Amino acid sequence: MDLTELFAFLSIPSVSTDPARREDVRRAALWLAERLKARGFRTELHETPLHPILYAERFVDEKAPTVLVYGHYDVQPPDPLELWESPPFSPVVREGRIYARGASDDKGQLFAHVLAAEEAPVNLKFLVEGEEEIGSPHLPPFVRANREKLRADVVLVSDGAMFAPHTPTLTYGLRGLCYLEVRLRGARRDLHSGAFGGVAPNPIQALGWLLARLKDEGTGKVLIPGFYERVRPVPEEEKALWPSLDEEALKRELGVEVLPGEEGYAPLERLWARPTLDPNGIWGGYQGEGSKTVIPAEAGMKLSMRLVPDQDPEEVADQAEAYLKAVCPPGYALEVRRLHGGRPVLTDPFSPPMRLMARALEEVWGRPPVYTREGGTIPVVAELKETLGAPIVLLGLGLPDDNLHAPNEKLDLVNLEKGVEVIRRFHRLLAG
Amino acid sequence: MDLTELFAFLSIPSVSTDPARREDVRRAALWLAERLKARGFRTELHETPLHPILYAERFVDEKAPTVLVYGHYDVQPPDPLELWESPPFSPVVREGRIYARGASDDKGQLFAHVLAAEEAPVNLKFLVEGEEEIGSPHLPPFVRANREKLRADVVLVSDGAMFAPHTPTLTYGLRGLCYLEVRLRGARRDLHSGAFGGVAPNPIQALGWLLARLKDEGTGKVLIPGFYERVRPVPEEEKALWPSLDEEALKRELGVEVLPGEEGYAPLERLWARPTLDPNGIWGGYQGEGSKTVIPAEAGMKLSMRLVPDQDPEEVADQAEAYLKAVCPPGYALEVRRLHGGRPVLTDPFSPPMRLMARALEEVWGRPPVYTREGGTIPVVAELKETLGAPIVLLGLGLPDDNLHAPNEKLDLVNLEKGVEVIRRFHRLLAG
Repeated sequence: MDLTELFAFLSIPSVSTDPARREDVRRAALWLAERLKARGFRTELHETPLHPILYAERFVDEKAPTVLVYGHYDVQPPDPLELWESPPFSPVVREGRIYARGASDDKGQLFAHVLAAEEAPVNLKFLVEGEEEIGSPHLPPFVRANREKLRADVVLVSDGAMFAPHTPTLTYGLRGLCYLEVRLRGARRDLHSGAFGGVAPNPIQALGWLLARLKDEGTGKVLIPGFYERVRPVPEEEKALWPSLDEEALKRELGVEVLPGEEGYAPLERLWARPTLDPNGIWGGYQGEGSKTVIPAEAGMKLSMRLVPDQDPEEVADQAEAYLKAVCPPGYALEVRRLHGGRPVLTDPFSPPMRLMARALEEVWGRPPVYTREGGTIPVVAELKETLGAPIVLLGLGLPDDNLHAPNEKLDLVNLEKGVEVIRRFHRLLAG
Repeated sequence: MDLTELFAFLSIPSVSTDPARREDVRRAALWLAERLKARGFRTELHETPLHPILYAERFVDEKAPTVLVYGHYDVQPPDPLELWESPPFSPVVREGRIYARGASDDKGQLFAHVLAAEEAPVNLKFLVEGEEEIGSPHLPPFVRANREKLRADVVLVSDGAMFAPHTPTLTYGLRGLCYLEVRLRGARRDLHSGAFGGVAPNPIQALGWLLARLKDEGTGKVLIPGFYERVRPVPEEEKALWPSLDEEALKRELGVEVLPGEEGYAPLERLWARPTLDPNGIWGGYQGEGSKTVIPAEAGMKLSMRLVPDQDPEEVADQAEAYLKAVCPPGYALEVRRLHGGRPVLTDPFSPPMRLMARALEEVWGRPPVYTREGGTIPVVAELKETLGAPIVLLGLGLPDDNLHAPNEKLDLVNLEKGVEVIRRFHRLLAG
């Protein structure tokens, strides 16, 4: 398989959250537009207040079905850089895997659709954004404003993972997301812990108290009032569809002896169908070598919640903010910023295009697919489902150990190669 | 007052905790030795495994009393650099104040003794270390090994603050210190919070739980078993000595509406005679702009406790470590490193040299001194007291708003000038 084009794509550091990378993000969009043009697509670059949306279309036959492919050309930040075995934006193949930021999430998976587009017997539309990793703030209004342009018989999304190696997988559910930044300010300035320890507010200590009030240590339950109210229980029939999780293998993979989580639910249900709360970053005071006896004026944390149907990110943000304000100890100025959100989504696992994709998967992999939900979030999928009304097919080509959002992100070459083949077969089955 | 020499001293970035500054720390010791030699002192530089100890002596008369001056030529790290109004190692005078890292803690105060040494009618010894800000690890053994060399009639220490502006102050007590670094490790690698949220250990969340278990949010009490056992209550007669604290002024200075602290004790007692616990730094996960949905493998914090008589830093470190191990949630690897410690100290407020210093202060400032303890720590003072057996005089020349260990550290010129004059008078009174 010729990886020249994909490697060029992976070499562009299109980190959407980093203001210093704005030109690189744009460069990734322009590069992809060129590659689609070379394959006969008509392309449009739609500007947004931040990163552009790339739309491309190629019609083969008025009567052929139309597939809308969604993907994103932006990537997560690569830090901590020192933990990468090879530079994140210098893609390499080691032991049958492509290592690079974006290899799996999502440039590699998206590029499988570009490759499969060659000689496809269906009408194809590509909707590719540069803001997925920051919560797709500008895509939903674009989708609503371009409902006709985007109309399709099926929406095809490859931005996820197979359940296990060599296990073809169809995903019918995604969690949503509510991502906040919380800052606490105590005194006007940093203070000497000797001279002022005993009377000074300490925002690091207060963040600790807030964290303990957000999630119960004993039960793993999120303590925000109302948080679980809209959570839809999983019917037993649905659980019967699920593959079984090899908990021991997961523990080995993570290097842990326990899988901590919400009391009363099995790990797979906690991953797919229960909401969670996790601090994703924390900072304050002295982080260098040795010791510094300071009580900092300010400390902060990033805090995200994964949501499940029928939770709503805005409502959860409201609940979390109100609760944080209510339990914030006196003497601290609390600031809550909403960084991004995404609605959870459930689709029909047995819609006609899902059945066709199941056949394509079985033909290529030699075994029928397993049906899964996914713990991650693709913010725009809920919008595509509701606005376009077309069936959604979530075809993950990655693997759970792809190190998404972490150092040494990778994509297995076999997944990429078979992925292209699966998509080609799906096109043919769909064209009839 | 000619500040040329002091400014040269303040320009040397002698940050003892920073391995990259090791040569600068040494340069500060050599520079000070030269300035003492120029004033007729014989100097010795004693190597340690880290930063050298400077000893200097000058004898005027066999029968004259001997004063041992203790000080330190190292300083705290200057960060956060962006909050300094002028660079930390480019001293300037603004509105009657010297701004520089070390202006008050302790280069400026120490240099007052160098200036007062000119024509002093007493025998003078200087013991100056470069490791005070990292807990003086090598000074106590040096003091024990050089008991004869260091013998003196009084030990004079200027590394503290006056109670308030224009308020001559004698300090008779210092808190001790126990400084730890705590690291928690969860999974083997950073994880995507969507793909693994619900089964992954989150060391940031666990640090929050630990912080909530270390200090009670409601009462401000430290929850480590045995922590308060050796705390000596303050006799009412001693409290009667204390000046009254202007709590409203303190609140204005700190920019706060409450002075949080241990329930049941007034602010001044909490600052001077009650132990405290404060996290001094915390880190983990993503700290950059925007959002990154990561569950980090590791997170950590710096944690210090100020101690009072008769708490012992080693015993407190043992108690804290045992407690942290006991309450650490399952699934995390806990590492506790002891960064440094210092014993608390109480001296006789009415010893003969303290009475002479009280007279010198009254003569220069026109009012008798107030008697205070101090919340900070000078680790070697307990050792000097016990090993040398000489009375200790703690003469603070700084002010509570000097921004020690914080951006924009300063020393008021009037304090420096009157400080030199007070020390000169003390020398004369002592010589009789």
